[in-house]
Amino acid sequence: MTGQLYDAIHQRRDVRGEFTGAPIPAGVLDRVLAAAHAAPSVGLSQPWDFVLVRDRALREAFHAHVRQERDVFAAGLAGEQADRFSRIKIDGVLESTMSIVVTYDPDRGSPAVLGRHAIADAGLYSVCLAIQNLWLAATAERLGVGWVSFYREAYVQKLLDIPADIRPVAWLCLGPVTHLERVPDLERHGWRQRRPWQDAIHHDRWQH
Amino acid sequence: MTGQLYDAIHQRRDVRGEFTGAPIPAGVLDRVLAAAHAAPSVGLSQPWDFVLVRDRALREAFHAHVRQERDVFAAGLAGEQADRFSRIKIDGVLESTMSIVVTYDPDRGSPAVLGRHAIADAGLYSVCLAIQNLWLAATAERLGVGWVSFYREAYVQKLLDIPADIRPVAWLCLGPVTHLERVPDLERHGWRQRRPWQDAIHHDRWQH
Repeated sequence: MTGQLYDAIHQRRDVRGEFTGAPIPAGVLDRVLAAAHAAPSVGLSQPWDFVLVRDRALREAFHAHVRQERDVFAAGLAGEQADRFSRIKIDGVLESTMSIVVTYDPDRGSPAVLGRHAIADAGLYSVCLAIQNLWLAATAERLGVGWVSFYREAYVQKLLDIPADIRPVAWLCLGPVTHLERVPDLERHGWRQRRPWQDAIHHDRWQH
Repeated sequence: MTGQLYDAIHQRRDVRGEFTGAPIPAGVLDRVLAAAHAAPSVGLSQPWDFVLVRDRALREAFHAHVRQERDVFAAGLAGEQADRFSRIKIDGVLESTMSIVVTYDPDRGSPAVLGRHAIADAGLYSVCLAIQNLWLAATAERLGVGWVSFYREAYVQKLLDIPADIRPVAWLCLGPVTHLERVPDLERHGWRQRRPWQDAIHHDRWQH
C-alpha cells in the first residue's frame, strides 16, 4: 500500500499562489479533518482543535496582520537576499477557499499525561503530527495547503477569541489549486536549495 | 489517490509489544527516510537529522534509562490509575529492529530563516512533520513505529554524542511487527478513550 502514500508525500507542496478559491465538497473536508484527528498523541491526549475560518472579514484582518509581519522580516534583510524575498509570495489567505487554525490545549488529559512528564513539548509535537496528516490527506484529495507563519500568536488568539491557555500552532490555508509546483517556491526563487536526504543520516552516534 | 493514504493514516499505531526484531530491507529503510526528508519545513530549512541506532549496547543503555523514567512517572500515580499504568508496556527498544533518533538543529538556515522570526518554535514543528511522514511511510511498508517519550533529552544527547546546540526531538523504535492493533494500547488498557473528531471542530471563532 505504498504507491499513493509516497505520491502524496513527494507531491505535497506548501502552496501560496495556486489557490483557485473553488468550494471544497463537505465529504472531502470531513475526510481531511478525520485524518488529522487520527494522528498519534502523547498519552492519547489528542490536544488539538481545528478552527475553520471561512468568514471573509476575519481572513482579511489576518491578512493585513501578515503583511505587517512580512515587513518586519523584510527590514532585517539586505542586498540580494532582500531582492529575492521581495519576489516571494508568503501567503494565500485571501485566494484560498478557507483557513484552518490548529491549536494546542496543554491541559487536555492533565495532570498525568502519560509520556509527557519528561518532555514538556511532547503535546505540542502531537499537534504537529495532526497537521502533517491533514496536509497529506489534503494533497491526496487534490487540495493545496499553505502554512502561514508570518504572524504573532497573540494576534490570532485575540482575533478568533481563543482562550489564553490554548495556543495557536498553525494557520493553514486550504482549497482547490490549479496545480502543485514540482519544486518548492523558495527553491524556485533561489532562496534556499534542498539538501540530499543522505546528508541527514548518522549511524549510532552523531559523528559517524 | 486517497485509499492507500487513508489506510496508512487510520491503521498506523504507536507500537510497543508487536515488534519481531526481523531485519528491515535496505531499500525499504531508504524509502522511509526519504519520505521523512520530504516533509515541509519553515524557510526550507530542513532542520532535522536522523541517527540510526542499531548498536545493542546503546539501545540497552537507553532502555535502562527509560525504565528509570517510567518509575518516576509511576511514583506520581495512585490507586486505579497506578494499577492501569502498571499493565502498560511503554517501549519496544530491545525487541524492535532498530531505533531512529530525530533531532533539531536551530542554526540550520540561520540567521534569516524565512517564516521563523515571529514563531520561535516553527523549526521544531518542521521536525515533527518529518516524523509523521516517517511514521506513515513505515506503516505503509508494514513496519511498526513506537515513539518512546520516557527519557531526558540531556541523557540522549550524551549517549549519542549529540552536540549541545542540537536537540533530540524523538526516539523512535522501528521494525517489522506481527500485526498492528486496531485500538490504541492506552484505550485497550482503559487509560484514556479517544474523542470523536467532530468535537475538535470550531467555526470562525473558538466558541462557535
